[in-house]
Amino acid sequence: MVGFISSLEDDFHIYQPTVLINAAHVIALQRARAIDRQDARKILAALRKIEKKAPRGGGVEDIHVLIEEYVTKRVGPDVGGRMHLAKSRNDQVATAIRMTLRIEILQTTQLLLSLQSQIISLARKHERTVFPGYTHLQPAQPITFAHFLLAHHDSLDRSTQRLLEIYQRVNMSPMGAGAIAGTSFSVNRNLVARLLGFDAIVENSLDGIGTRDFALEALGVFSIVSLDLSRLAQDLIFYSSGDVGLVELPDEFSSTSSIMPQKKNPDPLEVLRARCAKIAGNHLTATIMLHGLPSGYNLDFQEVTPLLWESTGTLKSCLTLMAKLVPRIKVSKSVAGKPYMPFLAATEIANILVRSEDLPFRKAHHIMGTAVRIAMKRQKNLREFTPKDWNDVTRRKLNPRTLREISAALDPQRLLHLYRSKGSPNPKETRKMANRRATRLKLWNRRVDSYVARLRMSDRELHAAARSI
Amino acid sequence: MVGFISSLEDDFHIYQPTVLINAAHVIALQRARAIDRQDARKILAALRKIEKKAPRGGGVEDIHVLIEEYVTKRVGPDVGGRMHLAKSRNDQVATAIRMTLRIEILQTTQLLLSLQSQIISLARKHERTVFPGYTHLQPAQPITFAHFLLAHHDSLDRSTQRLLEIYQRVNMSPMGAGAIAGTSFSVNRNLVARLLGFDAIVENSLDGIGTRDFALEALGVFSIVSLDLSRLAQDLIFYSSGDVGLVELPDEFSSTSSIMPQKKNPDPLEVLRARCAKIAGNHLTATIMLHGLPSGYNLDFQEVTPLLWESTGTLKSCLTLMAKLVPRIKVSKSVAGKPYMPFLAATEIANILVRSEDLPFRKAHHIMGTAVRIAMKRQKNLREFTPKDWNDVTRRKLNPRTLREISAALDPQRLLHLYRSKGSPNPKETRKMANRRATRLKLWNRRVDSYVARLRMSDRELHAAARSI
Amino acid sequence: MVGFISSLEDDFHIYQPTVLINAAHVIALQRARAIDRQDARKILAALRKIEKKAPRGGGVEDIHVLIEEYVTKRVGPDVGGRMHLAKSRNDQVATAIRMTLRIEILQTTQLLLSLQSQIISLARKHERTVFPGYTHLQPAQPITFAHFLLAHHDSLDRSTQRLLEIYQRVNMSPMGAGAIAGTSFSVNRNLVARLLGFDAIVENSLDGIGTRDFALEALGVFSIVSLDLSRLAQDLIFYSSGDVGLVELPDEFSSTSSIMPQKKNPDPLEVLRARCAKIAGNHLTATIMLHGLPSGYNLDFQEVTPLLWESTGTLKSCLTLMAKLVPRIKVSKSVAGKPYMPFLAATEIANILVRSEDLPFRKAHHIMGTAVRIAMKRQKNLREFTPKDWNDVTRRKLNPRTLREISAALDPQRLLHLYRSKGSPNPKETRKMANRRATRLKLWNRRVDSYVARLRMSDRELHAAARSI
Amino acid sequence: MVGFISSLEDDFHIYQPTVLINAAHVIALQRARAIDRQDARKILAALRKIEKKAPRGGGVEDIHVLIEEYVTKRVGPDVGGRMHLAKSRNDQVATAIRMTLRIEILQTTQLLLSLQSQIISLARKHERTVFPGYTHLQPAQPITFAHFLLAHHDSLDRSTQRLLEIYQRVNMSPMGAGAIAGTSFSVNRNLVARLLGFDAIVENSLDGIGTRDFALEALGVFSIVSLDLSRLAQDLIFYSSGDVGLVELPDEFSSTSSIMPQKKNPDPLEVLRARCAKIAGNHLTATIMLHGLPSGYNLDFQEVTPLLWESTGTLKSCLTLMAKLVPRIKVSKSVAGKPYMPFLAATEIANILVRSEDLPFRKAHHIMGTAVRIAMKRQKNLREFTPKDWNDVTRRKLNPRTLREISAALDPQRLLHLYRSKGSPNPKETRKMANRRATRLKLWNRRVDSYVARLRMSDRELHAAARSI
Repeated sequence: MVGFISSLEDDFHIYQPTVLINAAHVIALQRARAIDRQDARKILAALRKIEKKAPRGGGVEDIHVLIEEYVTKRVGPDVGGRMHLAKSRNDQVATAIRMTLRIEILQTTQLLLSLQSQIISLARKHERTVFPGYTHLQPAQPITFAHFLLAHHDSLDRSTQRLLEIYQRVNMSPMGAGAIAGTSFSVNRNLVARLLGFDAIVENSLDGIGTRDFALEALGVFSIVSLDLSRLAQDLIFYSSGDVGLVELPDEFSSTSSIMPQKKNPDPLEVLRARCAKIAGNHLTATIMLHGLPSGYNLDFQEVTPLLWESTGTLKSCLTLMAKLVPRIKVSKSVAGKPYMPFLAATEIANILVRSEDLPFRKAHHIMGTAVRIAMKRQKNLREFTPKDWNDVTRRKLNPRTLREISAALDPQRLLHLYRSKGSPNPKETRKMANRRATRLKLWNRRVDSYVARLRMSDRELHAAARSI
Repeated sequence: MVGFISSLEDDFHIYQPTVLINAAHVIALQRARAIDRQDARKILAALRKIEKKAPRGGGVEDIHVLIEEYVTKRVGPDVGGRMHLAKSRNDQVATAIRMTLRIEILQTTQLLLSLQSQIISLARKHERTVFPGYTHLQPAQPITFAHFLLAHHDSLDRSTQRLLEIYQRVNMSPMGAGAIAGTSFSVNRNLVARLLGFDAIVENSLDGIGTRDFALEALGVFSIVSLDLSRLAQDLIFYSSGDVGLVELPDEFSSTSSIMPQKKNPDPLEVLRARCAKIAGNHLTATIMLHGLPSGYNLDFQEVTPLLWESTGTLKSCLTLMAKLVPRIKVSKSVAGKPYMPFLAATEIANILVRSEDLPFRKAHHIMGTAVRIAMKRQKNLREFTPKDWNDVTRRKLNPRTLREISAALDPQRLLHLYRSKGSPNPKETRKMANRRATRLKLWNRRVDSYVARLRMSDRELHAAARSI
Repeated sequence: MVGFISSLEDDFHIYQPTVLINAAHVIALQRARAIDRQDARKILAALRKIEKKAPRGGGVEDIHVLIEEYVTKRVGPDVGGRMHLAKSRNDQVATAIRMTLRIEILQTTQLLLSLQSQIISLARKHERTVFPGYTHLQPAQPITFAHFLLAHHDSLDRSTQRLLEIYQRVNMSPMGAGAIAGTSFSVNRNLVARLLGFDAIVENSLDGIGTRDFALEALGVFSIVSLDLSRLAQDLIFYSSGDVGLVELPDEFSSTSSIMPQKKNPDPLEVLRARCAKIAGNHLTATIMLHGLPSGYNLDFQEVTPLLWESTGTLKSCLTLMAKLVPRIKVSKSVAGKPYMPFLAATEIANILVRSEDLPFRKAHHIMGTAVRIAMKRQKNLREFTPKDWNDVTRRKLNPRTLREISAALDPQRLLHLYRSKGSPNPKETRKMANRRATRLKLWNRRVDSYVARLRMSDRELHAAARSI
Repeated sequence: MVGFISSLEDDFHIYQPTVLINAAHVIALQRARAIDRQDARKILAALRKIEKKAPRGGGVEDIHVLIEEYVTKRVGPDVGGRMHLAKSRNDQVATAIRMTLRIEILQTTQLLLSLQSQIISLARKHERTVFPGYTHLQPAQPITFAHFLLAHHDSLDRSTQRLLEIYQRVNMSPMGAGAIAGTSFSVNRNLVARLLGFDAIVENSLDGIGTRDFALEALGVFSIVSLDLSRLAQDLIFYSSGDVGLVELPDEFSSTSSIMPQKKNPDPLEVLRARCAKIAGNHLTATIMLHGLPSGYNLDFQEVTPLLWESTGTLKSCLTLMAKLVPRIKVSKSVAGKPYMPFLAATEIANILVRSEDLPFRKAHHIMGTAVRIAMKRQKNLREFTPKDWNDVTRRKLNPRTLREISAALDPQRLLHLYRSKGSPNPKETRKMANRRATRLKLWNRRVDSYVARLRMSDRELHAAARSI
């Protein structure tokens, strides 16, 4: 049976945390006088030996047994056996998973921040690069490529915020919850938590060993990031398709066959899109596993854990890929000249008629509809309309300022500057947005750094405490 | 086609917000001098008429058209048409959904807090009620019913925290994002946001109309609450089953047939368990809908919205049911006397041997294993062991204090008091935990109240602003 | 509690079957002499009255109670009560769901066959309509629009086959399984099954009331059909987008705004794509509900049932929409003249070089890669290559036949006729495929008709048996 | 990029099929005179060398390249390059996946049949072993352990049927579909299909390379089997829990701690339950991947494939475990004597009163309800009722036959023989059911064997054809 239920292969993810947990626990036991200084020292010395590298061992069910067997062999059963006082595999594994997961969250956040940074950098270069804004996969209004990029940035940025929120619920220590009911030894749970870098303990012992909502919510945020990445991938696949031709993917991120050098297949983006589905799927799988489980520790939990590592591993590689790809995206030179571009100005020309000619809004809209229809019929584009054409379609003599403004709106580059609302693609707005986001990124980075620093500090504290016994 | 794509039936959930959005937008237009005071007044008066109750109207595609048609009919096309200046269905619907969703989140949080409060109250009554703690669906160690309840409380409490976190990301206004690119009118987006009770705006216009991650994360938290409720339901179904008999469900929350009055079926809990699966399933459905969608507004979004209302509706009814059921759960009198109870003391007796007899831990464990095996063979329980039996099994003469402690451990009621770790089922710990949680609940409630108050205030401000034009 | 657990609203889907089940059961009871002829007659008369239309009644939990209460009121408790002998709500509801589901399956199959028929008809018109075949969303090789359509047909056709396979597992009668253990009355289960149009009984009584895999596999096939429809929708959204312009959607199946008449939004296809996700999501929801449920009847089952009706309702409307839309799709006239078209001939020109010039395959490929690269550099297309150009790029003097063949391959219309493999887009192949599929559709239709006829016959037999008592 | 998109690691599952496909393709090319005999011979010889074991090679993207590179190195580029004529990675990979999947389906079916056989064997031993039948996790009516087992058998048996149905849709050859449009070489697709053991070809070339519904439906059936296994696991976990004690799990399939030898944790069943959730989750993941994908080959498909192998690998190990565990399940001796047992006879005693005393059914039910209530109040069980008690509760003088029958019904062993409906737990029925199922298993096994034989034959034919060139 060991074969079927063994988690040893997946356990390497939590190997080092498990060693540290044992060390922190032994320190706490010693301070509670539950084991004597001499024994504690021996166990700690043995643990130190295997902190960086697992001892070999097969045929055991999991990492917990592996470590205990190693220590016991090294310091003898009388001493080694004491390590397991007042703890259980149930609290130990929950603690170890949280320790690995918090690192994964921090690493994922760092990669997310890198990608965000690349997006902002590219956006800065494309503040004035006209690009069609799509609704329903149809070109709708002119925006800039920067605007498009910053929209993606902002989606991702919300997930950075989410990751740092859930970090706090992940970074809580179940150690001391025992098998389910705590223990009659007065081990200091807060001390153990602090030595292991936790912000707090999961207080109720049954709650500590019997819940995995921290895993579920982490998988949930990974899933949101994935869906955001899948949207970016989808956009790029579409924009770079032969028919659309808005962007060019870098050669290293597409494949061609020897016979069709004109055809660049966005292979990595397709794989990324599917892997993002896998990350979302892992979340769903955990949901099925956990629905309707009874309270207490159930071994079903063991199968939830690898979903975490698979998801973070995949997500990190997807973020890394995207951060490499994004800075190398080229916008095709022909974008601003696309034949449909002038038509995308229709809404803003209607706005001009409202403002400058005091036309009622619906009438202005109606006029523009007619104008577009006439243009399509004559296979002209709106830029080719003469003042007379405009007078005819509006059934009035437009004043010269109106005509100048219309002419401006029909130049997508100048149209951008007409946008006045906050958050619009107006290059000035874009610049402000990029700046604020860059500042915000620094704050996020500092926060992540402080978390990392806190973990390093607790690590040093743990080793110091071990040495001082 | 109107039939197939119409969202009218689902739209009633966002009817009132949509009226308010139109009002706030008209106020902002007037302040920006984009429409004149007179026209604004007329439109606002018309909107006020239908604020509480939708006008009749069929054959239209959605609520946005319905409202515009009503206003236009009432104030004439020249005036009515101006209402739609500088906005679009795309930003309007995103804003309205967020306004309804924030109410749903607050209501859900209130019901969650009610349930938590009921759980704490019941826990206070059961501080000393011995109950088996389960692992692997097997009785493992004695805990109390209060301890069991507080574990459930703590799971739910984390979701209260989550709901209040996501509230802040939901409560952001996309209004002013227009169809996709903002507008050339200088409408004050922050003013609109404030009048509608939002904390901030979703700045980038493409982001504002083209993302639904706020829906996804709300569905994700609803799913976590559901899984927690499904665990509680599962526990109660198991504990109340004829074989187990640990708790009795109130008659109103179970069904019997006329012929089998002894058999109480936990019907509502089964239905609740399945409905919780539905809530989780809705989350998954939204995930499938959103995976791989391109940027910009796509009508697929329309199908995400009803998932929100179905999930909150179901979740609220499940929370209400649970809050009514929980206070009426009875713990069977026979629990402490269950034949397996003494065996659950084994771990703590081993701990006693370690502490009082200075036995090595593994040896103590081994001894207790032998003791249990002997007891089972003799069909005795450990409470029937004589001092001689204990001396025999430990192969030593135990000192009287040890024997007294063992005897205490074998009385589950007294065993509870042996637990010394923080968060253990020791009744003293339980009391402290219940008190702290009750205090915390007050804080949560106050926070929810303050959010509600802020929404009411903005509502008053909006109406005052409308009147003052 | 009745409010929370009531299934009355969803039950109307199974109302008529439930009446018929009661009738068939009473007939069987009478033949088993478990109730006398007189009583049976009265009950059957009462049931006949409500066969078409449910009696009013509120405050009851479900349709089973509603019907029994009506009959009892009408014929008195002594007679009415006998109707419930030797059966249970558990077997009755499982039977009724299967009866409604089999109708839904047949209707869905009919709509699927209609859509397939529309696809074949349209394909016949487009046997020679050149269309780009895509891989990785990039034009890859010339095919025909018919070929594209028949590919979709064939996907759907496999689901027709699937639906008729699962029909046989759905169409089995659990009646007589009682609550869980059958009954001590010797009711003839096969008779009941036959009168209700079933092909067989679900023999084991626990299996009969305690499984819903028939629902799960139906939802699974609905999900596959949905994914196929979502692919068709995705294709049409892409092909009709402004940038791509390969097909035009009929006006009734797209929406335009008054101001942007040039922009046709494929609204219904987007809604359809999302609803297909909902159908897939319902399958997943059922999976969560059923995972880990214990044997026997659990009320969770009640929540699985509405997923069936929602899925079939949605799927039927999606199939209906698609069947109306498909025949009105127009292929843009400009397709064959797309600038990239000649490049799509590269593979076949390489094949020509292999065949006619006995060039090694990889070399031919390499040559064509060079040719394409040269053409792109010179901003020419391959059709503009002179014989000298071809000689240069192949570094040999091509024989005239080769040049003629190359010239043919560069005309996409003629290229189609070069395809020789079975199932290729060669118009001759297409015609054969369309014919075979049309014949196959007739067979499918006949099979569905025979199932329908069998159900009608059993209905008549049931009524005759009722009258003959 | 090769790192990110490489499928090499997963490809070993389709390695051997890919070699065979190349061989069959070369044979067909030679017969079509597209390559000459000499070249074909060399390529076939090279392929034969690596048929059993893959050549080493790193840095290549996938198995297709690996094989082609090996052959090319061995026979030179002029000859080796010809192998790739008239085929593409797109049709080749689709064909290879189907070849591996069909083997996986057959192996899964064989393991399923083994498990079914074990279940039937155990059922034969427990034809008369009284067991409580549960509804709503409450004991409801007496059945036998055999009846319980056969219900599980029948669920699984339907999936055996499903697997053999989908086998036919999986076992179709896309080879010859080329990249998307077939080819201008007249390769005989039916010949290739036959040499590779396929039943038919996937005719339309776009359909052949651009669909994965065969994978989806396989994952769907694996999911159904998983849910059935999860139900069996759930039942056994519940039945073996300390409170319920109906069955004993074999020691090798449960874990105990040294200190709690009385507590047998059903670890493998919990892991199995969670892994079954994973299998279901993989199905959902594939659904997310495929929803909304456009037609043609997309590299997303590559990520669907490993879900297949992970699911079959896991499912096969779960089936193997269950087949080992089932024969060793012990039913506790105390089951028939459970205090609640007599109460489970209530329904059948009511039936007796209807039959023997001609009481109206509802009245009989009402009486039994009263009887149970009285018994519970007096803390008696129904077996302790005297004839006077029965007369009192029925308010009539029961005739002696009635009393004898009641007495029989109160002995669960004798009650079993009262069941008369087809498919009931009556031991005679059980024996018949077991016999019929054993016969049916033989037929299934024969069918699987014939499929295996057919594959072996085609393998021989392929090798013979290769040799004969």
